[in-house]
Amino acid sequence: MLRKTDEVKVMRDPIHGYIHVEYQILWDCINAREFQRLRRIHQLGGDFQVYHTAEHTRFSHSLGVYEIVRRMVEEVDGLKNDLNEHEKVTVMLAGLLHDIGHGPFSHAFEAISGFSHEVYTKRILLEDSEIHRILCRADEQLPYAVASIISYEHPNELLNQIVSGQLDADRMDYLLRDAYATGTSYGEFDLERILRTIRIRDHQILVKESGIHSVQDYLMARYHMYWQVYLHPVARSFEGMLVQLFKRLRDLYPSDTIAMAPMFFPFLKEGEASIEEHFALDEAAAFYGFAQLMHSEDRLVCDLARRLLNRDLFEYVNIEDPQKIQQIRENIEKAGYDSRYYMFTDTVKQKAFSPYTIGDKKHNIWVLCEDRQIREITQVSDIVKAIAEVKGKVQTKVYYPAEITQAEVCG
Amino acid sequence: MLRKTDEVKVMRDPIHGYIHVEYQILWDCINAREFQRLRRIHQLGGDFQVYHTAEHTRFSHSLGVYEIVRRMVEEVDGLKNDLNEHEKVTVMLAGLLHDIGHGPFSHAFEAISGFSHEVYTKRILLEDSEIHRILCRADEQLPYAVASIISYEHPNELLNQIVSGQLDADRMDYLLRDAYATGTSYGEFDLERILRTIRIRDHQILVKESGIHSVQDYLMARYHMYWQVYLHPVARSFEGMLVQLFKRLRDLYPSDTIAMAPMFFPFLKEGEASIEEHFALDEAAAFYGFAQLMHSEDRLVCDLARRLLNRDLFEYVNIEDPQKIQQIRENIEKAGYDSRYYMFTDTVKQKAFSPYTIGDKKHNIWVLCEDRQIREITQVSDIVKAIAEVKGKVQTKVYYPAEITQAEVCG
Amino acid sequence: MLRKTDEVKVMRDPIHGYIHVEYQILWDCINAREFQRLRRIHQLGGDFQVYHTAEHTRFSHSLGVYEIVRRMVEEVDGLKNDLNEHEKVTVMLAGLLHDIGHGPFSHAFEAISGFSHEVYTKRILLEDSEIHRILCRADEQLPYAVASIISYEHPNELLNQIVSGQLDADRMDYLLRDAYATGTSYGEFDLERILRTIRIRDHQILVKESGIHSVQDYLMARYHMYWQVYLHPVARSFEGMLVQLFKRLRDLYPSDTIAMAPMFFPFLKEGEASIEEHFALDEAAAFYGFAQLMHSEDRLVCDLARRLLNRDLFEYVNIEDPQKIQQIRENIEKAGYDSRYYMFTDTVKQKAFSPYTIGDKKHNIWVLCEDRQIREITQVSDIVKAIAEVKGKVQTKVYYPAEITQAEVCG
Amino acid sequence: MLRKTDEVKVMRDPIHGYIHVEYQILWDCINAREFQRLRRIHQLGGDFQVYHTAEHTRFSHSLGVYEIVRRMVEEVDGLKNDLNEHEKVTVMLAGLLHDIGHGPFSHAFEAISGFSHEVYTKRILLEDSEIHRILCRADEQLPYAVASIISYEHPNELLNQIVSGQLDADRMDYLLRDAYATGTSYGEFDLERILRTIRIRDHQILVKESGIHSVQDYLMARYHMYWQVYLHPVARSFEGMLVQLFKRLRDLYPSDTIAMAPMFFPFLKEGEASIEEHFALDEAAAFYGFAQLMHSEDRLVCDLARRLLNRDLFEYVNIEDPQKIQQIRENIEKAGYDSRYYMFTDTVKQKAFSPYTIGDKKHNIWVLCEDRQIREITQVSDIVKAIAEVKGKVQTKVYYPAEITQAEVCG
Repeated sequence: MLRKTDEVKVMRDPIHGYIHVEYQILWDCINAREFQRLRRIHQLGGDFQVYHTAEHTRFSHSLGVYEIVRRMVEEVDGLKNDLNEHEKVTVMLAGLLHDIGHGPFSHAFEAISGFSHEVYTKRILLEDSEIHRILCRADEQLPYAVASIISYEHPNELLNQIVSGQLDADRMDYLLRDAYATGTSYGEFDLERILRTIRIRDHQILVKESGIHSVQDYLMARYHMYWQVYLHPVARSFEGMLVQLFKRLRDLYPSDTIAMAPMFFPFLKEGEASIEEHFALDEAAAFYGFAQLMHSEDRLVCDLARRLLNRDLFEYVNIEDPQKIQQIRENIEKAGYDSRYYMFTDTVKQKAFSPYTIGDKKHNIWVLCEDRQIREITQVSDIVKAIAEVKGKVQTKVYYPAEITQAEVCG
Repeated sequence: MLRKTDEVKVMRDPIHGYIHVEYQILWDCINAREFQRLRRIHQLGGDFQVYHTAEHTRFSHSLGVYEIVRRMVEEVDGLKNDLNEHEKVTVMLAGLLHDIGHGPFSHAFEAISGFSHEVYTKRILLEDSEIHRILCRADEQLPYAVASIISYEHPNELLNQIVSGQLDADRMDYLLRDAYATGTSYGEFDLERILRTIRIRDHQILVKESGIHSVQDYLMARYHMYWQVYLHPVARSFEGMLVQLFKRLRDLYPSDTIAMAPMFFPFLKEGEASIEEHFALDEAAAFYGFAQLMHSEDRLVCDLARRLLNRDLFEYVNIEDPQKIQQIRENIEKAGYDSRYYMFTDTVKQKAFSPYTIGDKKHNIWVLCEDRQIREITQVSDIVKAIAEVKGKVQTKVYYPAEITQAEVCG
Repeated sequence: MLRKTDEVKVMRDPIHGYIHVEYQILWDCINAREFQRLRRIHQLGGDFQVYHTAEHTRFSHSLGVYEIVRRMVEEVDGLKNDLNEHEKVTVMLAGLLHDIGHGPFSHAFEAISGFSHEVYTKRILLEDSEIHRILCRADEQLPYAVASIISYEHPNELLNQIVSGQLDADRMDYLLRDAYATGTSYGEFDLERILRTIRIRDHQILVKESGIHSVQDYLMARYHMYWQVYLHPVARSFEGMLVQLFKRLRDLYPSDTIAMAPMFFPFLKEGEASIEEHFALDEAAAFYGFAQLMHSEDRLVCDLARRLLNRDLFEYVNIEDPQKIQQIRENIEKAGYDSRYYMFTDTVKQKAFSPYTIGDKKHNIWVLCEDRQIREITQVSDIVKAIAEVKGKVQTKVYYPAEITQAEVCG
Repeated sequence: MLRKTDEVKVMRDPIHGYIHVEYQILWDCINAREFQRLRRIHQLGGDFQVYHTAEHTRFSHSLGVYEIVRRMVEEVDGLKNDLNEHEKVTVMLAGLLHDIGHGPFSHAFEAISGFSHEVYTKRILLEDSEIHRILCRADEQLPYAVASIISYEHPNELLNQIVSGQLDADRMDYLLRDAYATGTSYGEFDLERILRTIRIRDHQILVKESGIHSVQDYLMARYHMYWQVYLHPVARSFEGMLVQLFKRLRDLYPSDTIAMAPMFFPFLKEGEASIEEHFALDEAAAFYGFAQLMHSEDRLVCDLARRLLNRDLFEYVNIEDPQKIQQIRENIEKAGYDSRYYMFTDTVKQKAFSPYTIGDKKHNIWVLCEDRQIREITQVSDIVKAIAEVKGKVQTKVYYPAEITQAEVCG
């Protein structure tokens, strides 16, 4: 398990300069088919429909998370000295493999298929996959150790925190990477300084008080990215339409009218798909499926697939009064559309996406103050406190075909 | 044709800040299915196999070329004042649509299919496509005008030069974009300064002498990008293996053993594929096809497809003595591989990729000197002259399955 | 006044790419001696003692403010169309010249000399300076018009807002420039997007609701820069020590012991210095003065000057209990130092540096909402509201010579 | 000498992220008065008159050189393992202190004063300076060891190469830093990749063949920076005028007419100035001196000093025919100027500034080829060979007061 590669392998990366790999087992995992498949899954679901350069994949993000984990265990004193080499490699593997179970346009797809990427991540680690075999060859217990870090259940809580705490490698990589790929500056913060000011006390990741401004910056970056990128209404339109198409496919299944898109069947039928079926359904397959479904005899399937393929997306209107939704439904029907498939609502609770919540032990940020006391960050930073106390508001949008005018829809 | 959009449409772009669109016809072309299809074609063919972040597509590049053309016709004096609005829109359309005919992993694919992207670009413009209909609605002659700029045959030679001269919008966008996406600094140069020092005399794009250093920088950027990115041997391996798979498919066609990958048939059969068939074959289809071919009964198809999908690429060895190639072929056969498909050579003539060639009128760079004379750049810049005179050397590489050792192959 | 230069003059600038000048009067002002003097005044007072690359000057900042004003009046619709050319040039001049009255290490110097940079800015514009003569040559009223914009008293309130409102050219340039020069990422925000979303209604600068995230980012940038850069305790140490030296000089003046530093006399004597004396006292003169004062026979002057020149700065301790200050004073005396000069306190009220205050009409940010209503930003953005409502806390630091230990000082 | 600081000291730096200091002796040298003085010496002489943001100093450059040396000895295998700790600290000191002897606007100043910065660097190290005392406290031989590395005479040649070979810390820092400060992209290259591909064989720094493209990029960066920044004719005008003022001062010395500028006397009188006099003459003193000389009774001194202070620089004309110079001299006299002081020529031999010269053993770049052979870079890289063989041309410029028209001067 601790065997080194002949020389350090490096891969050029715009976020980290280089990704450095020096353990053979990590290199083998990168070359495994399940990991290579991540090249065919966008990092940001439908966001490339809004930000045309957001074509980056879960493959590069996974490498980035690994690289931050590697730097943490090699550069942060409390980790460098207190973790043994076996633990270090295990947590690097967890960083690398934490997203291995994702499906196409992930969150949207999960909604309709009932398939959760966490479940598949675990299955790929523990069932008979190429990744599983690589891990087992090193140590029979390794798949379980890696899976338990990813599910935040490893007995050494530090390992869990490194991958998915509040100042974790996952979030730090994706904020920087998504900002770079979209070309926005919202996600930028000072990774170097955060890494330099991280400390460990009592198996807890802390940040030195002198690093608190970088952490504020990072929390604001998260806030901005949520509203500007992750919850962008046009990306939500694409993802919502995908849900609509699947609803229709499920209503029809099994039927000859959708026979040309067998790649979707495992997710339409009863029961959970196998990891082999999961492997097969990547975004290449999904897009090819949409193209095939354009030849369906079912007019609705045909039309929704075409819209997804050619980016003929639904428009939306903000709804303050929930009563109005029924009126809109009637107007859409009046315009000649089946409102079961040609209309959907999306409600976003701001609170859920506030960058910080007090009292969530797992996800709080702890500060090592100059007086050597440890305090939760809102007790030290008025500005984080202010942000954390923002009262959530609820925004609802109704989506409908763009060829209907807003006047018709609301009228 | 000259109708404006309600307000200027903007799209965030990491290279240009924003892409600005203010003519309805350009906006309509962007939303056309053939243009949206470019989202499913990588800009850099197999390079994403080397630079894992090089996932950017011909869609974003095409927008970038359009944006540079727009800036040129709006900011460079000789263009701003001398071109009329009709010409400006036409050349912006040519910039936007110049790559519309590309297929998957383009250059490699062209090699085996005999399908040239230039031919398909022209056919999409002139046959019954959505793009064609949008252009015709504005002006029956417009498809021909746009096509003639793209093929460097428009009677107003300035328009041709803007899109594909030496200091053209195409190259300037792709160097910057490819550098950004790969995370290398090689492709960077000072676009702002080049745009500021461009002048027009006698229907020729010139650069002021004071801008010559930016042009040197740009030529060096081209040189570096060729060797570091465009000709990277690992990308060539991927592309060469694609050629090998197609060779095998063609040898078998028609055959039940490849029935599961019908998306490739139009390019295997005799005769040119239709633009509808061309539309259908994007990289999503190609990757789905590889996945299907892994179930072929033909052992070779099955194996080559698997290697492409899972990135199990061929290794290579540099060959100085061409006599050795026959020896290698024998060794590969001895190792149990069919050398018709499991070996290929790649010869790169450096000269062809030198950044600059003297005496190629179309592609020379002209300098407006401080004494008001116009001179070809090598007469003004010793360093460009030196670079242009570099004698080309020829490099040959032989590729073979990575599981054979180099000793076995050469031994 | 509206005469153009022969061709647009450009100056390379890392923040804006280029500074573009096309009016002769602006070019003449840039070349005037009072403007060139700004090259000898640091933009960030004592901050170069903390951030060793923060050597940038008020000269480059002033050019940057001018450039943003220029872009605003040429690119923002409500300004481009509603201001006449005379107003545009006037406000560009105000942007360029708004800092012309600054002295060395400005805020610190003002504290001791009683000399306010606003007063000198006005005097330089209205008295017999080179700048004054350039403006008068164009229009006798011009100096007054420029001065009234800078003092926020021009009858066309829009002009005042452009230079020093809340979304003003001054702040936008210095945040970006100071971030670049210090090498921090705190001051970064999306200037392009803010410029694109600015609107004008009823002589008020507004920002479109869709631009609100960029404004949040900009307010956070201000917040971070205050705490990380502008109020950095080491910069405050340098500036405070400067005040101490001046206190001593004033106590001695006139005296042979300080005869070697005549450049400081105009600011020690009774009455306001002339603009000629103000011109003469730049940071080169100040540093030369410190070097000369190292030869003073007054031991205190000699020592304080040496510390400033060679960066032998005072240390500090945070004081929560104001009672302790008297104790510290005694300890410093006990250690053999004259506490009138070798100790000072610095109290920073966070509130004063919060990025935003509600109800300050001049300095509020107004949002043009999607429903066409205009609202103060805290009514639209929960996060800005949260930040604006942060209750200020007061931090006091006591500074003392670094060679005394903290134990001795507090003990 | 090997004592560590309590914790690693870090300083934010835009080029390197942070400067890291962990030896007390290095920290002490940074805080020494001679090192702090470098804050008052521009890195780029008169270039801030062209690039208004090029205000960076030899202080930040010296820290940057130190940081690259530190990384080299800690990250490059052949250095990390083969140098002992004493050698490492010594070469870090040499990197830090290599520019300690510079005077104001250095190269220009040297020209007239006959004072060479190398000589003063050595004197400061070996005579009784604060730096000297710090070094001696650690080891009596240390000043000599440091000085010998700086003068490329240390018996361990590797140490010399690290500081001033061809791929040396000095050049690598200044190219990146000057590019950042001027806002040009010319000086950029891939420092990370160069550091990663450096190897050591037989006490020689080599670069691996796979790093050759980064080296080409770096050589081109040097070429561009010379022509765009270091030899910029406007910077040369400022520096040339400085020489003219000194010529006049020397012709007058000693004289009451220049009594107000005693800081220049040590460099006007016979014999070499002391290191104390050298310490006193920084750029603050020089600018204060110019301001004082504006009150000289000598009309020429007064005028030249004013021009330097207020940036009223000389214009220039390119001269191809050296015969013309005499004609110009006559024209300048005819216009009423004393041509001894109001005219100067500047001849730049391109060859001297070509980025690379073959056959200069000390300054050649050696490549460790894939076949394990070591070759001089021009034998491996056609493009470097081409550049190295560029035949030098000679450019002469004549400078004269800008108020004379070019027609008058040449006419």
